[in-house]
Amino acid sequence: MEIRKTGSGICVDGFQAAGAREGKYGVALIMGENPCEAAGAYTRNSLKAAPVIVTAGKIDRGRLQAVIANSGNANACVKEGMQDAEKMCGIAGGLLGVTPDRIGVASTGIIGRRLDLESIEKLAGKAASNLSNSFEGGLDAAKAIMTTDTIPKQLSFEYKGIEIGGICKGSGMIAPDMATMLCFLATNAKLPAEELRECLKEAVDESFNMLVIDGDMSTNDMVLLLSSGKTECIIEDFQALLNHATKEFAKLMAFDGEGATKFLEVKVRGASDKESAKAAAKAIVASSLVKCAMNGENPNWGRIAAAMGSVMEYEPLKMSIAFGSGKGETTVYEKGEAKDLAKAREILKDREINVTVDLDSGKSEAVSWGCDLTKEYVRINAEYN
Amino acid sequence: MEIRKTGSGICVDGFQAAGAREGKYGVALIMGENPCEAAGAYTRNSLKAAPVIVTAGKIDRGRLQAVIANSGNANACVKEGMQDAEKMCGIAGGLLGVTPDRIGVASTGIIGRRLDLESIEKLAGKAASNLSNSFEGGLDAAKAIMTTDTIPKQLSFEYKGIEIGGICKGSGMIAPDMATMLCFLATNAKLPAEELRECLKEAVDESFNMLVIDGDMSTNDMVLLLSSGKTECIIEDFQALLNHATKEFAKLMAFDGEGATKFLEVKVRGASDKESAKAAAKAIVASSLVKCAMNGENPNWGRIAAAMGSVMEYEPLKMSIAFGSGKGETTVYEKGEAKDLAKAREILKDREINVTVDLDSGKSEAVSWGCDLTKEYVRINAEYN
Repeated sequence: MEIRKTGSGICVDGFQAAGAREGKYGVALIMGENPCEAAGAYTRNSLKAAPVIVTAGKIDRGRLQAVIANSGNANACVKEGMQDAEKMCGIAGGLLGVTPDRIGVASTGIIGRRLDLESIEKLAGKAASNLSNSFEGGLDAAKAIMTTDTIPKQLSFEYKGIEIGGICKGSGMIAPDMATMLCFLATNAKLPAEELRECLKEAVDESFNMLVIDGDMSTNDMVLLLSSGKTECIIEDFQALLNHATKEFAKLMAFDGEGATKFLEVKVRGASDKESAKAAAKAIVASSLVKCAMNGENPNWGRIAAAMGSVMEYEPLKMSIAFGSGKGETTVYEKGEAKDLAKAREILKDREINVTVDLDSGKSEAVSWGCDLTKEYVRINAEYN
Repeated sequence: MEIRKTGSGICVDGFQAAGAREGKYGVALIMGENPCEAAGAYTRNSLKAAPVIVTAGKIDRGRLQAVIANSGNANACVKEGMQDAEKMCGIAGGLLGVTPDRIGVASTGIIGRRLDLESIEKLAGKAASNLSNSFEGGLDAAKAIMTTDTIPKQLSFEYKGIEIGGICKGSGMIAPDMATMLCFLATNAKLPAEELRECLKEAVDESFNMLVIDGDMSTNDMVLLLSSGKTECIIEDFQALLNHATKEFAKLMAFDGEGATKFLEVKVRGASDKESAKAAAKAIVASSLVKCAMNGENPNWGRIAAAMGSVMEYEPLKMSIAFGSGKGETTVYEKGEAKDLAKAREILKDREINVTVDLDSGKSEAVSWGCDLTKEYVRINAEYN
């Protein structure tokens, strides 16, 4: 039995979604029929935005039935942040007929400016009147939380009757240990909250935490998982599906990294232990020099070797490095020998690039995702305000 | 008594220098009248280039009388690296009449290609015939080790009769814990090798290790200090002078960061301890988003707050952030209040920018240096090969 893509989007059975935008601000609403078991994963930045703190507190205390999320303002580093985040829950609660205790809140956008609650209330009202259990409702929600994203991001999957659907937004400031990324996931899987949380932690570690766009770590990252509990399942099946879904979201964010023209998937294998495999894979996609080389379609594998050496020990005379794409695969360095680069130059002209490093020192491996560093990234982030 | 700039360059009393370039390759020679007490600081990248390993070994075993350094090729990740690095010492030894055991070697350039020893021998011969104890000799040496540097870097200082002169090269791949940077320092200070090494370690920690250009860590970084021992001194005076000199070199490298249009000096003060002050100061100059904001002359202080939060804990409601330049200083955030940004926008139009963060939580402080991230950085590193 295979995991398959479905057409529900975030609106798996028992969920509705909607979104509204006006100028820089957007508001998304996601709502369950009933209170849902919930799990969250949050930025590890010590400077946590108010909505992160508010939502984590609510999940600690019990179930969630709905989520309100806005783009345009991060509600971080503002004196009135906590009260404004609670006010957003109140606005959503009033519109949806749900107690604010059961409402999660998320924000993304600029730091240090007070939320425009009037705009949020207006957009939330508009969204609430358009709630639907359709793919389009989810798509509107995905559009409402976009910042520098160029495409709305909604995906859904099914495996043995378990469904997971979600929306997310990238796309800069995405680093190991999350990102300015918001991801909202809905499922029908009937599992206790504790198990949902364990599963989410494992899935996030292998997906969003292996994604690097620019190495910056946001104050507002959040992954929320809500379950309607409509379908009995075994935890292993749910974990497999959740791992798959979160990796697909991570890849989608890498594809749409700020200014990106290349998608990179890096596998480090043959490592002596999992931690060094992960560290090496992340260091490669995080390296500005590797990212620039990919932008220039330049098979400068020495930068890959150097990036790994900055975070872990390995034996260069045992290692090999290969580039691959739809055009095939070619080894550019093997155990001390530099190889001809002609085929690598062809491969790097593709948009989707695989980098495979074999350390030949053990059985552990890890995969990371990222994108190239481009002049457009600089332009976006020089001008963004 | 003040530290003053002098006109000697690296050729303080008892030293000669020269350099020669042709195409991508350049060779610098630096030579003392007699064997010198020597100290070195090296990249912490586990993938150390062969010349780093060779030079560290020679310094461990005794004194150095000369240094040969080349640009154009890093001599890293190549099977024949160690033997080729030794051959470079042999070439220099033959030309200078010094045993190869007393010769340090350094390389900078692309990783994974074998050194062209023939070119190096030819250029070393040319340099050896031009050795001089003049500022111009040092300048030729500084020019010979340039890669993407736009200006040759030579400085010298005097304090209480102690002289320190040096040359260095940046300018990308400069990260906490050094950089693709080479820095060669000569002094007349008479101090035992052990004390020179302690002094160099302290100076490097506060200077080159507080410099970030792009967060990548090179395989080839090296700072070498050679002493003629001609002048008696007390260690405190030497340390003060060495700290000053290495900071001035670090600043010069930040000024000439790859593609840079802005020089950033970041001070974090009011920290509870030195380590978190250093971590915060480095995180700010390392943040791609902060660097892009500076490029765009955009006083987006939220990115400064977020960058600090990614590496340490602090209380945002106690903190303040100010921007300064030759035009004055202005506070943009103070204890939870965002301030008007009009003056900050004017300040950020300058080339030299100061960022001051006061955490109001203690007495520790740290200073870091860096530059903006520019489209030109991306161009240089997409095309470099």
